[in-house]
Amino acid sequence: MKRNILDYNFPQDLKSMSDKELELLSYSIRDFLIDKVSKTGGHLASNLGVVELSIALHKVFDSPKDKIIWDVGHQSYVHKILTGRAGDFDTLRQFRGLSGFPKANESLHDAFDTGHSSTSVSAAAGMASAREINGENYEVIAVIGDGSLTGGMAYEALNNIGASKSKVIVILNDNGMSISKNIGGISTHLGTLRTSKGYLSAKKFIKNNIGSRGGVGRAIAGGLAGFKNDIKYSILEKGGVLFEELGFTYFGPVDGHDITELVNVLNRAKSLDEPVLIHVITRKGKGYRNAEKFPGKFHGVGPFDPETGEVTKKEEGISYSEIMGNHLVKIAEKNPRVAAITAAMGQATGLGPFEERFPERFFDVGIAEQHAVTFAAGLAKCGIRPLCAIYSSFLQRAYDQIMEDVCMQKLPVVFAIDRAGIVGADGETHHGIYDLSYLLTMPQMTVLTPHDGESLKRAMDYAFSLEAPAAIRYPRGNTTNLDDIDKKNIMSTCAKKIKNERIFSGRDVDIWACGKMYDCGLKLREILNAKGIETGLVDVEIVKPLDLALFNKSCKIIVTLEDNDVSGGFGMHLAAALKDENIRILNFGWPDKFIEQGSFGELAEKYGLTPQQIAERICEEIEGKA
Amino acid sequence: MKRNILDYNFPQDLKSMSDKELELLSYSIRDFLIDKVSKTGGHLASNLGVVELSIALHKVFDSPKDKIIWDVGHQSYVHKILTGRAGDFDTLRQFRGLSGFPKANESLHDAFDTGHSSTSVSAAAGMASAREINGENYEVIAVIGDGSLTGGMAYEALNNIGASKSKVIVILNDNGMSISKNIGGISTHLGTLRTSKGYLSAKKFIKNNIGSRGGVGRAIAGGLAGFKNDIKYSILEKGGVLFEELGFTYFGPVDGHDITELVNVLNRAKSLDEPVLIHVITRKGKGYRNAEKFPGKFHGVGPFDPETGEVTKKEEGISYSEIMGNHLVKIAEKNPRVAAITAAMGQATGLGPFEERFPERFFDVGIAEQHAVTFAAGLAKCGIRPLCAIYSSFLQRAYDQIMEDVCMQKLPVVFAIDRAGIVGADGETHHGIYDLSYLLTMPQMTVLTPHDGESLKRAMDYAFSLEAPAAIRYPRGNTTNLDDIDKKNIMSTCAKKIKNERIFSGRDVDIWACGKMYDCGLKLREILNAKGIETGLVDVEIVKPLDLALFNKSCKIIVTLEDNDVSGGFGMHLAAALKDENIRILNFGWPDKFIEQGSFGELAEKYGLTPQQIAERICEEIEGKA
Repeated sequence: MKRNILDYNFPQDLKSMSDKELELLSYSIRDFLIDKVSKTGGHLASNLGVVELSIALHKVFDSPKDKIIWDVGHQSYVHKILTGRAGDFDTLRQFRGLSGFPKANESLHDAFDTGHSSTSVSAAAGMASAREINGENYEVIAVIGDGSLTGGMAYEALNNIGASKSKVIVILNDNGMSISKNIGGISTHLGTLRTSKGYLSAKKFIKNNIGSRGGVGRAIAGGLAGFKNDIKYSILEKGGVLFEELGFTYFGPVDGHDITELVNVLNRAKSLDEPVLIHVITRKGKGYRNAEKFPGKFHGVGPFDPETGEVTKKEEGISYSEIMGNHLVKIAEKNPRVAAITAAMGQATGLGPFEERFPERFFDVGIAEQHAVTFAAGLAKCGIRPLCAIYSSFLQRAYDQIMEDVCMQKLPVVFAIDRAGIVGADGETHHGIYDLSYLLTMPQMTVLTPHDGESLKRAMDYAFSLEAPAAIRYPRGNTTNLDDIDKKNIMSTCAKKIKNERIFSGRDVDIWACGKMYDCGLKLREILNAKGIETGLVDVEIVKPLDLALFNKSCKIIVTLEDNDVSGGFGMHLAAALKDENIRILNFGWPDKFIEQGSFGELAEKYGLTPQQIAERICEEIEGKA
Repeated sequence: MKRNILDYNFPQDLKSMSDKELELLSYSIRDFLIDKVSKTGGHLASNLGVVELSIALHKVFDSPKDKIIWDVGHQSYVHKILTGRAGDFDTLRQFRGLSGFPKANESLHDAFDTGHSSTSVSAAAGMASAREINGENYEVIAVIGDGSLTGGMAYEALNNIGASKSKVIVILNDNGMSISKNIGGISTHLGTLRTSKGYLSAKKFIKNNIGSRGGVGRAIAGGLAGFKNDIKYSILEKGGVLFEELGFTYFGPVDGHDITELVNVLNRAKSLDEPVLIHVITRKGKGYRNAEKFPGKFHGVGPFDPETGEVTKKEEGISYSEIMGNHLVKIAEKNPRVAAITAAMGQATGLGPFEERFPERFFDVGIAEQHAVTFAAGLAKCGIRPLCAIYSSFLQRAYDQIMEDVCMQKLPVVFAIDRAGIVGADGETHHGIYDLSYLLTMPQMTVLTPHDGESLKRAMDYAFSLEAPAAIRYPRGNTTNLDDIDKKNIMSTCAKKIKNERIFSGRDVDIWACGKMYDCGLKLREILNAKGIETGLVDVEIVKPLDLALFNKSCKIIVTLEDNDVSGGFGMHLAAALKDENIRILNFGWPDKFIEQGSFGELAEKYGLTPQQIAERICEEIEGKA
């Protein structure tokens, strides 16, 4: 009989449950996940894939004493259910609600906050070393996907643990795909392991040999060698060699949907005092037909109809990503030297049409932003005009490569910085509110901030015309500009050249609005004008080099608006440039703190960034109250 | 007969030289290197290690048509000699002189500018893909050390090339050590390969099998398997497996000091149309007794006596690194939870005494700054108080990890940022002039700028007292403060607490000087006072959070001094904070461009940052000329 998920006392209740009960529980959890996520939206497919793994982990280990670290962290929903948070799922990923990622401030069971890829093994290594220094006794487990394993940082950590011989259990959750498909030599290697006929035999062998002398990995190798089955031998032995050469004992592959199997292998790993890597094969979307069929669609999904799998709440307009991708096709049609690079986010960044049209000029390098950028530099150095489409917060990974490999050599790489500014439900780890701050300090870089599809296309045309690096930042979501929504129009070239433009003049207040905040500027101006404050508006499309040509000396107050940290942002640079002018400058942007999840509107309201709130601040300033 | 190095016409002359002549040339080049570097200083040991390799590369490949990329690049001296720059070696690493790193603006033979570790394979991948898009025909060769191979970015690139099957030749220059010793599972693995008895047999085997069907790597494996020598078989087969699993054909190990051997294997690689990794064994310092004995000392060395190996020009004073390391020992004596982390720079960052005293709390993670920082976060999360000692420009690699893993979780990690500001001879890739710009925009971070040993100790005490992240930036080189030079004193604790301090008052101009620029501030004040301009001075030790308590409203001009990019630096943040005050603010720091190699004095002179030049600017401002 299925019990209601909310009736359990997790994780304690798991300890006394039989294998059969745990299997029934896995069905209940899947139903619960599909029900809840169909209403809130969220990362469904990856969580359906780790139901059994999460149950087995909490069955075998004692969280929070034992530390379970979820790489990236969007697959931590089941873990959250199993650590007392099932009741909060109606608020999942909403303002003031349950986070879609591990958060220590939500539960002690969230051993390490994650969000960006490939950090879990490093954090686990640190926790294991802390245990040794403190003379304590707990287990450290990192759960990392095969996609995250393409990030070099994971390799740095594996390499380091292998040498230190610290006891860390790394669980390689191999579903054969990262967010889109998986890339790289290691992926081919894992694919061979996964699909080999050796799999089932090895599986049986693990069962029969638990408790035998030496690691299971070795036992498998030895056992299969005994069968004189050369194919199985070489495949499994190679798997062992690859991770064992890094210093790990390798167990696997293990069926990630067989709880008994998982519990056995986890117990075995727990009993050893050395670095262990357990290779678990899972299926993304497992148990929900629609998600198994379209794991990409259900990676991160909005509210949907559980029966049909159809998304129920479609956003209006057309996404910046789609406009970027379509316009890049236009540009590449004319210029055979234009190439596109993604770090495992081809579809999400709108590069699908480019990939289809120009496969030989399309490069998905895996979750490897550092490599992506220097790879682009290499292309540019040999005459290619690459565009790197990367989310703002993930591009932080490549700060050094942008600075040293691109800007220092003044190479014409175009950065299409998607999801710049507030991203909403993914929260603090994913908001792209620092890119202006760090890009503005990079010599030789041009920084552009379009605010709709037309200006995005202008920015791209301009960026590709430069013999130097350029970054174009644009927000997550859709533009509602009617010109953009017209499908014919998004495929068109654009008529105007990019430039900072004075849209309105006004003698009292001058608003300088970057990118997405242009709309806020329009509303703000209306409010101020209605109060009798004559307000001008500058559409700032070029943030660097700083262009002061439109500076109106006769205004009393300049107001800057940006969807970026105020610290180091456009406003601060403008204020510094105008510091000797006799003018008040008010900078509006996100404060110097980490901004939580929530819609742009909710967060703007909280941090005083709605047009109405900004207007009030300006009025106070004018009235001398501030 | 040895010819003078300057009499050759390189690289053309190499093409017609016999093996014997090339060997003689290698002796001449070593003499030349030792002679020149003993006068200028520079990276000697690594260049002595690649004499034969550089000769063989230019014998086999046609630079600049073929692209040779030197990872890190400090081992490119021989390459520079062989590409027409021998005559410039008297100016090596000096202001306006020959760079110690590859620079495209110096020669077309420098295919890609490098400086930071582990980028070469990514750049090579980009160049190879560009070749395919453009339908061109050239070879791309990346030369990467075993140390650089611990950087995750190299793995990202190998993984990507392995999957794309692009023809790239990666030469693993394995000298068994990075700058200090090498770290990690992969290093242990290479060590096994290197010291195996299989080495010589394999070497002979390569010679005999050049031209046989299939890759040499495969030929070796097959051949040795035929010998039924299990040890050799398993060792070499594993070497093959590790890189071959990533998609490379593996050749090696090869004697890196045998030109004939090298030329053979390079020709063989050239004839294949697939990714090849050649594992070359070299000896750091090869051919110069003093450097072979102390490769660490001769990694980067000042002018020295070629006979004795003794450094001839010793700097006065005591280094900030040494003070930091010694004081950390003091702190760790009292606090058993203090740990230290280095990314392959233990000695250079002053952590030698700590490692010796507390080996169980010392962690060298290899050239892996990303992992270093998140590893520190993991330690801190479990109650340890880690200090990460990393050079400023290398810490750029960990921007995202500092932001997401340390600051976002408000973990008490102390960053000891060595070589902050201008570093001198290493030039633009190594100047640490961006750390203030990016750290000041990180929420929850405290940023400290000590200017001598006493203030460095104060900063450390303060940083370890916080329950939040802190960064302490201090310059390369020595402090000449007499208190610091007293050896007893550097081992003492410090009496004062860190704070921003008013050193002098003055009603006309107020100087706010950060860190190293404090000395400049003192001199500047004297010059201005002598001109009748009453000048105050604030010693800024805490840059973030910004402390305006000492702001003197009655002054006409505030002058900020920092050894950082003015863009986004302390001065800009101060100016933004005071933007509504009726005061002139002049920010002095490095301009928004890449700063070349040169001494601090030479560069300050060029960019208008000497006390005399700054005084003139201030006078102009006062006289209303500016």
